[in-house]
Amino acid sequence: MSTGSGDSPVYQAIERGSLYSLDYRIFIKGPQGIVSPWHDIPLFANKENKVYNMIVEIPRWTNAKMEMATKEPFSPIKQDEKKGVARFVHNIFPHKGYIWNYGALPQTWEDPNHVVPDTGAKGDNDPIDVIEIGSKVAGRGAVLQVKVLGTVALIDEGETDWKLVAIDVNDENADKLNDIGDVEKVYPGLLAASVEWFRNYKIPAGKPANEFAFNGEFKNREYAEKVIDETNQFWKALMKEANPALNTISRVPEAVHQATDEAATAALQSTPDHGSASALPGDVDKWHFVQG
Amino acid sequence: MSTGSGDSPVYQAIERGSLYSLDYRIFIKGPQGIVSPWHDIPLFANKENKVYNMIVEIPRWTNAKMEMATKEPFSPIKQDEKKGVARFVHNIFPHKGYIWNYGALPQTWEDPNHVVPDTGAKGDNDPIDVIEIGSKVAGRGAVLQVKVLGTVALIDEGETDWKLVAIDVNDENADKLNDIGDVEKVYPGLLAASVEWFRNYKIPAGKPANEFAFNGEFKNREYAEKVIDETNQFWKALMKEANPALNTISRVPEAVHQATDEAATAALQSTPDHGSASALPGDVDKWHFVQG
Repeated sequence: MSTGSGDSPVYQAIERGSLYSLDYRIFIKGPQGIVSPWHDIPLFANKENKVYNMIVEIPRWTNAKMEMATKEPFSPIKQDEKKGVARFVHNIFPHKGYIWNYGALPQTWEDPNHVVPDTGAKGDNDPIDVIEIGSKVAGRGAVLQVKVLGTVALIDEGETDWKLVAIDVNDENADKLNDIGDVEKVYPGLLAASVEWFRNYKIPAGKPANEFAFNGEFKNREYAEKVIDETNQFWKALMKEANPALNTISRVPEAVHQATDEAATAALQSTPDHGSASALPGDVDKWHFVQG
Repeated sequence: MSTGSGDSPVYQAIERGSLYSLDYRIFIKGPQGIVSPWHDIPLFANKENKVYNMIVEIPRWTNAKMEMATKEPFSPIKQDEKKGVARFVHNIFPHKGYIWNYGALPQTWEDPNHVVPDTGAKGDNDPIDVIEIGSKVAGRGAVLQVKVLGTVALIDEGETDWKLVAIDVNDENADKLNDIGDVEKVYPGLLAASVEWFRNYKIPAGKPANEFAFNGEFKNREYAEKVIDETNQFWKALMKEANPALNTISRVPEAVHQATDEAATAALQSTPDHGSASALPGDVDKWHFVQG
């Protein structure tokens, strides 16, 4: 079942449970059956042309904070929770929800045992995040083919949390965007708004403003691609760990913990059938006015 | 049938045809049966406390340009069209669709034969427009009870097009907002964003930037209430015209053209049953980056 536009012809999103509930999951089905979008979708869609696969977790203009469940087999997308309650980001004026398609690159891992020399902070224990700035709203669970343009280093509660900037290679503006400097030409104001968004988005929940390495300046494409390669190496090492803290069941040959079709079916069947969406929280449409 | 939150217990929105199609209509049903939201809903919900009724045409964050059909009996809400195609406003970065609940005050009319002395431009032949800045997204066809805080005078293709600023009296911030100066305190940046929005919203469609009287400065509550009273007088005069260019069939006693239940039923039945929504245009999610 498709959850929106931008779906790959290769990967299919399968919804389980009820949207906005803690039982909601999106499994990804590939040519081999149910796969882990984190471990089994290749990092590169086209390595020669440096086209990456991106898994979309949060469509532009939505508020539900979805992410791959890195501790669950086959890492389905689920809604993040806080104290047992489904988590939604607040709208911070002038923005509505997330202002890009937000997701992650497969086969990457920001190793929490590694201090990133350039930022001085450890990795955040997740796949590397991506903001996709194209004109279409992508579906939850869609797999996009993207070109990476640059990156900014959010320091989120003391951890390095790279946010890659990318564009869908099928976007009408993709040809005009080849490095971070092109973004301001084609989308004036978007990078500044993105930094502001990441700086402020937790403030209405009572947290302090987030900080950035490099004063919030964006690094270019070459730098970003080095970061991706590094997080890809950390992921490869993780896949060889006998007792990782995260779930590393995978169909890739080098994985210590090999997936089976039986385990895939069991993971899917451990979740409820796809039901109708739960109600959104009453304050999800509220605009928060954060000064500064 | 309700179309969303904020519905009045007195008025009910009845959808007909297919949303986003030219046959879509929302009729309003009141205690007397089908009423004209333009002519039959009282301007004041509570005259002593200066609480006005507002009819919501466009919910915040949506793009479909809906408006009361002033030339049709019982003035149902319909989608504005341009050359036979349903009209949607473009998203202008950083905004998503309309940034307030947008609608009009009943029993008002900006007389196109009257040059507004303060603006030097004639009325735009419509009921007076309102932006409602509360925290909830109102439903299409909802009737809100609002407090008016001020107004700005858009000059749209040479016509005076007042935009009143109002707040739902049931909003959590309503008590803090009593005049135009309070808006910047509670919602910093919203008035400037609103002027920017109105200035630019037609640019992606190939039109020039809109202009404003008074350099885009907002007039206060007292001024706005005088404007409303004036447009209410123009409406009263319109209702007495024997051969008006607009449809003035109404249930109010002073109307020359009196509504009947038979005419109401006929108007409703001349429209198709409520069907499922038509597809949104493919580019409705695109962000336009307007410089300036």
